[in-house]
Amino acid sequence: MDIRTYLSQKRDLVDEGMEKYFPKSMDSQTTLHKAVRYSLFAGGKRIRPILSIAAFEAVGGEGDGILPFACGLEMIHTYSLIHDDLPAIDNDDYRRGKPTCHKVFGEAIAILAGDALLTEAFHLMTQPSARASQPGAEGLILELVNEIARAAGLSGMVIGQVMDIESEGKEIDLPTLEYLHTNKTGKMILAAIKVGARLGGARGEALRGLISYGEKIGLAFQIADDILNVEGKADVLGKNTGTDVTRKKATYPGVLGLRESKRRGAELVDRAVDALSLFGPEADPLREIARFVVAREH
Amino acid sequence: MDIRTYLSQKRDLVDEGMEKYFPKSMDSQTTLHKAVRYSLFAGGKRIRPILSIAAFEAVGGEGDGILPFACGLEMIHTYSLIHDDLPAIDNDDYRRGKPTCHKVFGEAIAILAGDALLTEAFHLMTQPSARASQPGAEGLILELVNEIARAAGLSGMVIGQVMDIESEGKEIDLPTLEYLHTNKTGKMILAAIKVGARLGGARGEALRGLISYGEKIGLAFQIADDILNVEGKADVLGKNTGTDVTRKKATYPGVLGLRESKRRGAELVDRAVDALSLFGPEADPLREIARFVVAREH
Repeated sequence: MDIRTYLSQKRDLVDEGMEKYFPKSMDSQTTLHKAVRYSLFAGGKRIRPILSIAAFEAVGGEGDGILPFACGLEMIHTYSLIHDDLPAIDNDDYRRGKPTCHKVFGEAIAILAGDALLTEAFHLMTQPSARASQPGAEGLILELVNEIARAAGLSGMVIGQVMDIESEGKEIDLPTLEYLHTNKTGKMILAAIKVGARLGGARGEALRGLISYGEKIGLAFQIADDILNVEGKADVLGKNTGTDVTRKKATYPGVLGLRESKRRGAELVDRAVDALSLFGPEADPLREIARFVVAREH
Repeated sequence: MDIRTYLSQKRDLVDEGMEKYFPKSMDSQTTLHKAVRYSLFAGGKRIRPILSIAAFEAVGGEGDGILPFACGLEMIHTYSLIHDDLPAIDNDDYRRGKPTCHKVFGEAIAILAGDALLTEAFHLMTQPSARASQPGAEGLILELVNEIARAAGLSGMVIGQVMDIESEGKEIDLPTLEYLHTNKTGKMILAAIKVGARLGGARGEALRGLISYGEKIGLAFQIADDILNVEGKADVLGKNTGTDVTRKKATYPGVLGLRESKRRGAELVDRAVDALSLFGPEADPLREIARFVVAREH
């Protein structure tokens, strides 16, 4: 299957899951529901849930037990974008081509919409349908929820965001930059892959291969994002570019230069693909996603 | 045992649990850890975790399986206070006698400290020690985490906060006010009691009695809080008073008048105590806490 068709099919699956959880009829109920749906259905690529589903399928996972996790991962990602965009943090006016949540609904509602999405992610991942679809797998589900919470919290995404803020305007070295991004984006991407793999029944070498893939792809994504912020066109990306330089953000092009950043990104993709050597064609989507990452439109 | 001694012992237990989870040595590591600890150890009364423990013990619960939930409930409560105090929401400068989190650490760190506390609560409640202390109880633990997420999210605390903001300056009636507070504070207090009861093994009538107690005590707390905001002294409360009137907040004294609010608060306490008629002295702490609520220093 063509990778674009694959991505589109899985994106639809995730969107349907989230539609079911936050039905449109709720739109009319409260400002909070509207704000949550506004940000959740703003045209995200759904990379994290798709990686999770692709890992699940690569190890032979069947059924829809992965879906609550896939949707939960995207809800956590969306909450983090809403909060990052706030005036007190990155102060971004546009996201995915649309005004950011706080520009439309105000800061108070944006803060609370983020809070709601984070909380509801944990509600969705622990709800009876998630449990029932994996009979007897409650212990595993608890472990995976725990894994996601760790990747999203004080030793993961949130501390990465703080490091990102605190590194603005400072000269930082490559190890610090990698540490920052490992926390800010890498751990959640890795968690997405681990959750898919473990729910799909991966163990031993297969699990280790997927973890290795996840570690590399997480960093490759961030390098690609940093490059896009320099070279990308705002109308294609749907958000302002050049903002990293204006804000003196710590980025790969800033630390390594553009050329070396591209080389490193490509190398990480190769190493991510190498980590899947144990797998046959069932891991092709994961390989394609890795290649797709660095080939994104500039 | 004297109720003050009881409250103090349980408060210490909860504080020790949270100290263990966020050790002081971390203080020196990052601004985020400092901000989290600053708000978490700012002298809160720990009412929610104590109610949870008291319900657990009232039905014969033993061991420390309740502790991760007790601490998690307090962490969720603290996150909600940090976010509510933000300039974009209630814009409060003082909380528990100390400058609010954003006054000390800035808005960005306060937003992220709240996010971290909410996330870490789910991490703590699903961690291996929580699971191990209740062998085979993974299904129950998942259910309770789910229950807490529901009470804290879009159909609970967060929507209650939005209703609170949106009702400012508006005339609202009693049913609307009760609906607002049931969501904003009632559901989390009820969840605290249900979690304690169910982890302690409560079923049938005992569980129903505790749920009824929890529903009444949640509203009684809010009425007492509203009365304190009118009659309390800022130096005793550690926060500004009279702010509800200034902000034209929806409150019980505003809707019912002070005298009727007090009568109603006392009546709810009586009905909460009545709901425990099935229990002997093992529920005395719950009875005492109910009475303590309306007797708080004005």
